[in-house]
Amino acid sequence: MVTLPLRPPRSAGTPDVEPLLTEEHHHSEDHVNEVHFAFLDGAPETPVFRPGPSHPFSRPGPRLGSYRSPAPPPALQHLAGSGAPTSVKNLARILAFLVLLGIIPSTIIFLVDISVHNVVKAREALVNANAPAGYIFYVLSGLVLCVTSTLVCHLWSPEAEGSGIPAMKSLMSGFYDKVKPSLSLWTLLAKAVGLVCAIGGGLPVGWEGPNVHISCIVAHHLSRLPPFRDLRKDRALRMQIMACACAVGLASSFGTPIGGVLYALETTASFYLVPTFWKCVLATLAGSLVYDLLYKTPLVEAFLNTTFVKDDYKKEQLVAFVFLGVLLGILGAFFVRCVHTVYILRKRRLPGTNRYVLLSVVGIIAALVQYPRYLFRLDPRLAINEFFSSDNMETLSHLDVGLLVLIKFPLIVIAIGLPIPAGVFIPCFLLGSGLGRLYGELLRLLFGANIVPGGYAVVGAAAFTAGVTRALSVAVVIFEVTGQLQHMVPTLAAVLASVIVANGINRSLYDTLIIMKEMPYMPHMRRDRSPSQKVHEVMRTDVISLRENTTLGEIRSMLDTYTRFDSFPVVTGAGLLLGAVRRRSLLNLMNSSRPRLPNGEVDTSLSDRGSLGASISVSDEAVQAESEDRHQKRSRVMNGVHEQADLSDSPVLPEEAIEQGRAKEEEESPPEYGRGTETRIEPDLSPLVVTENTTLSQLHFMFVMLMPTHAFVLVGGALQGIVTRGDIVQSGTILRHPGEQPEDDTTVS
Amino acid sequence: MVTLPLRPPRSAGTPDVEPLLTEEHHHSEDHVNEVHFAFLDGAPETPVFRPGPSHPFSRPGPRLGSYRSPAPPPALQHLAGSGAPTSVKNLARILAFLVLLGIIPSTIIFLVDISVHNVVKAREALVNANAPAGYIFYVLSGLVLCVTSTLVCHLWSPEAEGSGIPAMKSLMSGFYDKVKPSLSLWTLLAKAVGLVCAIGGGLPVGWEGPNVHISCIVAHHLSRLPPFRDLRKDRALRMQIMACACAVGLASSFGTPIGGVLYALETTASFYLVPTFWKCVLATLAGSLVYDLLYKTPLVEAFLNTTFVKDDYKKEQLVAFVFLGVLLGILGAFFVRCVHTVYILRKRRLPGTNRYVLLSVVGIIAALVQYPRYLFRLDPRLAINEFFSSDNMETLSHLDVGLLVLIKFPLIVIAIGLPIPAGVFIPCFLLGSGLGRLYGELLRLLFGANIVPGGYAVVGAAAFTAGVTRALSVAVVIFEVTGQLQHMVPTLAAVLASVIVANGINRSLYDTLIIMKEMPYMPHMRRDRSPSQKVHEVMRTDVISLRENTTLGEIRSMLDTYTRFDSFPVVTGAGLLLGAVRRRSLLNLMNSSRPRLPNGEVDTSLSDRGSLGASISVSDEAVQAESEDRHQKRSRVMNGVHEQADLSDSPVLPEEAIEQGRAKEEEESPPEYGRGTETRIEPDLSPLVVTENTTLSQLHFMFVMLMPTHAFVLVGGALQGIVTRGDIVQSGTILRHPGEQPEDDTTVS
Repeated sequence: MVTLPLRPPRSAGTPDVEPLLTEEHHHSEDHVNEVHFAFLDGAPETPVFRPGPSHPFSRPGPRLGSYRSPAPPPALQHLAGSGAPTSVKNLARILAFLVLLGIIPSTIIFLVDISVHNVVKAREALVNANAPAGYIFYVLSGLVLCVTSTLVCHLWSPEAEGSGIPAMKSLMSGFYDKVKPSLSLWTLLAKAVGLVCAIGGGLPVGWEGPNVHISCIVAHHLSRLPPFRDLRKDRALRMQIMACACAVGLASSFGTPIGGVLYALETTASFYLVPTFWKCVLATLAGSLVYDLLYKTPLVEAFLNTTFVKDDYKKEQLVAFVFLGVLLGILGAFFVRCVHTVYILRKRRLPGTNRYVLLSVVGIIAALVQYPRYLFRLDPRLAINEFFSSDNMETLSHLDVGLLVLIKFPLIVIAIGLPIPAGVFIPCFLLGSGLGRLYGELLRLLFGANIVPGGYAVVGAAAFTAGVTRALSVAVVIFEVTGQLQHMVPTLAAVLASVIVANGINRSLYDTLIIMKEMPYMPHMRRDRSPSQKVHEVMRTDVISLRENTTLGEIRSMLDTYTRFDSFPVVTGAGLLLGAVRRRSLLNLMNSSRPRLPNGEVDTSLSDRGSLGASISVSDEAVQAESEDRHQKRSRVMNGVHEQADLSDSPVLPEEAIEQGRAKEEEESPPEYGRGTETRIEPDLSPLVVTENTTLSQLHFMFVMLMPTHAFVLVGGALQGIVTRGDIVQSGTILRHPGEQPEDDTTVS
Repeated sequence: MVTLPLRPPRSAGTPDVEPLLTEEHHHSEDHVNEVHFAFLDGAPETPVFRPGPSHPFSRPGPRLGSYRSPAPPPALQHLAGSGAPTSVKNLARILAFLVLLGIIPSTIIFLVDISVHNVVKAREALVNANAPAGYIFYVLSGLVLCVTSTLVCHLWSPEAEGSGIPAMKSLMSGFYDKVKPSLSLWTLLAKAVGLVCAIGGGLPVGWEGPNVHISCIVAHHLSRLPPFRDLRKDRALRMQIMACACAVGLASSFGTPIGGVLYALETTASFYLVPTFWKCVLATLAGSLVYDLLYKTPLVEAFLNTTFVKDDYKKEQLVAFVFLGVLLGILGAFFVRCVHTVYILRKRRLPGTNRYVLLSVVGIIAALVQYPRYLFRLDPRLAINEFFSSDNMETLSHLDVGLLVLIKFPLIVIAIGLPIPAGVFIPCFLLGSGLGRLYGELLRLLFGANIVPGGYAVVGAAAFTAGVTRALSVAVVIFEVTGQLQHMVPTLAAVLASVIVANGINRSLYDTLIIMKEMPYMPHMRRDRSPSQKVHEVMRTDVISLRENTTLGEIRSMLDTYTRFDSFPVVTGAGLLLGAVRRRSLLNLMNSSRPRLPNGEVDTSLSDRGSLGASISVSDEAVQAESEDRHQKRSRVMNGVHEQADLSDSPVLPEEAIEQGRAKEEEESPPEYGRGTETRIEPDLSPLVVTENTTLSQLHFMFVMLMPTHAFVLVGGALQGIVTRGDIVQSGTILRHPGEQPEDDTTVS
């Protein structure tokens, strides 16, 4: 009697299930990250145990020091900075890749920037050519550009909408597969064109997030080219490459090689490995040479170096700088809250609003309010350079600065949530520098001429941006942007005060965007979990697993039923975990056992692979039992396919599915498998295993650091349950309630 | 019949065994790091299995969502930047701690620096007062100071010798316990006094490493004060605090808050968590305010800001800068090799040399060769400031620069390996800036006046130091030291070239020092291991474990025998792993079961702790069996103690030990344990568990990221072996062959 331990995947359509079979998984199998798993989301069921032929733990423990696996050493060493030798060829490949990764996105980013510049110039020319009706032409051209911006996203790639940094943060936290749709070349095109239209159309959005996204798309496609394909195979290296891409995107946005690296790591990663650092610096350096060559031309605007003289401020002013930091930290948190609230209001009050209507209205308003003041409608870098000036402002009055902040603040808040490519750094930089300048001018009015308001503008820009993004490395970015270190201590102090205060109030803007846009998300624990909970409290207990005496036919039907599962755990008859086996290995077994076994040969290609540990025996008896049990199984397969079709909204009709199942059954006739043979499969994956009393905080730490998709829970050696990433770490799908306020759990870590 | 599964610890005296029972372990138990383990280093033995009463895996898996552990959530969230709330009080505590951690070490470092300044001044005064015999007085005073430097280390703390950064690197890679002896206040004193004497005595050693060490000692003792004791309990936070301490030490050495943080993280950690960053910046900022207040006085020398004008170099010169980087990378690697070779020569050729003789000889030579040139014997910062000058050098000729490099290079190489506190950063900085200056002067001779040699000195200082330490953040340090960003791109390019070239040749100096001084060391895999090996090939199979039917008496004797083991694995009768239990829990059981059980009460204090999973039952039968078996056991205990005494060179005589064992047996009389009762212990540790086919590269990654002391290896659910940290990751004890060349495995990760 064969009792089939299979049940249909009731949860196949629910969002909690990880996509388990993708191209990525096949490329990277030598890493602990790559443990995948099959489970069912249903009621617990008592496992059906059958006595296995021999339990491996009854053998005395072997000391097999002489055994050497023939597999090449994985490049995992890059991660931990190990002393393992790296071949010169491999190193050259990595270096070449990183240099290209620096040059290509920087060139694209430069092209985008120069396009923006030309669009703005063309609009100005249009306005000037039609002097009396210039306002109307300005509004109309803005309207057209804004609508075009969302049109390209709509047509080519909805993934191009938004900043890009939240998506890359999601990617860097291990959700490569889920984020992969947004790494297409169409997304790159939509992002670039949409960004040109949005900024050119007068919307106060930044370009650092889209640039990061563009860099990552370039990195993704570059790494698929034949010379670099090997680099992709090492998942750890792939993550480092993505970190480098983020750094290049940021560095090329501002021409800040070091600040770009730090800002990218701080905003997209939750931890970073030291060897990532030199890779990032190499890439950003290559990018900054392009920046140097291309940007330092009169073609486009760039940040000017500041010219503060030494001892521009007295030590006593440090209090004023820190107070500015605290103020802008509160304001930064308020900004984040506004973005969140506006987004929710739009989703609630205007749920069905057409994106084109939205963009038209916002585009017209932006044009109307920004047209009257010349500097408002030009590149924000011009205004920022003026704010940073150590002398009096030339073209802007105090009133202008106040107006700019008042007008831009709500516009930026609205624009960031629109379905267009939209960064946040430069708008925040503009607001912060304006606020800092006002603060500095006020101080000068109060305390006299020894106050240099430009210094407060610099510190304010860093502090407000840090209050919004919660990244301390904004300070480094500003040192590089201004080319001066005179204000190092006040900038650091203000940025630190701002980040601490703002973190006391709510989450960073990027985290808020991740939650708003329901992206999968790693570092935070789910809100319905407590760190002191034990894994047995949250694990799913209904685990689909292979037994050591599972027949080939059962494996086949399991493969057919659970098409989305990339691997299956293997247990003994008593339910003790032996390991996990890849779908591919099972398919290989199926394919290889069929042509050979009619001759009665043992499948040596598989059994030669060092069958040290446990193995699945597909023995005579099992094959016999299978053939006796075929009718019974067929009905089960029918049910299985039926239920799967119901749940996953598959286009396959139940009747067709049954036919398919029947067709497969025909292929599985006993003579093909042969009798008197034994085929062994070694579990070829080493899953992440924990005992049932592990706390969730421990498991959460493991999920963050090792990035597996799931962990097996053992109770006394027996596979008792599974905890997937979604069971513990926060992901957007869990936080789908639009009214939810992220402010209720503050983070000051 | 009771079969005692105990064997004496044959390996108790070998260096591979981790010290498992220390104060640290008791302070931090809520973390995956804190899994400890008991094993024997002997021949494999077939485990003795007895059938357990009930296997937990035969129960249907419970879904215990309603169960909530009453334990407070651990502060592990700091690690992963989680959104878990942190109380305001806790935040205030952390902030106060970090500010103190910035201020106290900076003040100590300032005091050391000013002492050095005064010692040098006093020597100069002595020399000038005895003008004709000045040379002799200079040599004699140098001799006295050098000998004093090693004397204080010898008397107070040998751990004060050397740089300090390798020791902290060891600490940061998880060997807190092994490094703990070097965190005493005596070490601080020896380090500070020894450093003053060494630098004052004319030895060309740096102060950044000793400063890092001093900071870490301050952090260690500060965190033991009552208000901050809670911070210590969270091991993850403790590691972050140590990272902050390293950053403060470096930042205060040069007045570079950002560069200090980056350099510390790059040289002491193998990965870092994003939330570490703000903590480090806060601490270094507090330190840099002290630096600002104290250093910017005419009392001591400091680095001067450079005054390069904009566009000091043309883009074409970038090639020259990169070439300088390559040259200095090769030279940096050569420097590391020299340090290693000199150390080995001294150990081989002069094995018994007295430390005082050594220091006398070196001190006299240093005084003899440095006296003739005024700038050679003064603070290296004076010479560096001159090299960095954008104008012509005032006091130094080209010949002087060449002489300085030629004289200082061998002196530095020798001094770094001496038994004195000795940093490497500033000496390398001096050599690099001298070499860069020479290179720049040569270029000016060749290509004319538009070359500014001072720029090459800046780039050279960064490149050579990076070639020695392999830290890219030297570039950031130099930007902060010079206060200018003009040379950002050439500095980064040269540093990157230098690091890549030097990494192609050998290890960093800090890694080499770790190997030379045989410190425990985490990030690299052991050289006799291959990343593709499986854990079952390296695991130890003779594991001491508790069975579920172990009697109280057996537990007692196990506790007595394995006094160094902080925890024990718990297995079922069939050897299936249930978890691990702390020594302390076992001791609690012993203590609590004795007074209560005569009344026949069940020990509810333990059994109430949510006995969900497996438990050890100490039942009637076991107690009965124990009392029947007492005589037999006594002899085993005697043997156990005997063997332990033999191996661990314990002062306890075998007879005394037997008496002790007998005395303990007396205490274990059956009435004290009571009959008719059952005491349950729940395994309270969640050990790191892997299956036997896990590759070493995976396990290595886990060891680096999670820092456990060991991992259990399961074969089909049964505890089959153990892999300790020492089995996989490199530690100095493994690399004890003095002739070994570290150059044979290059690292370019």
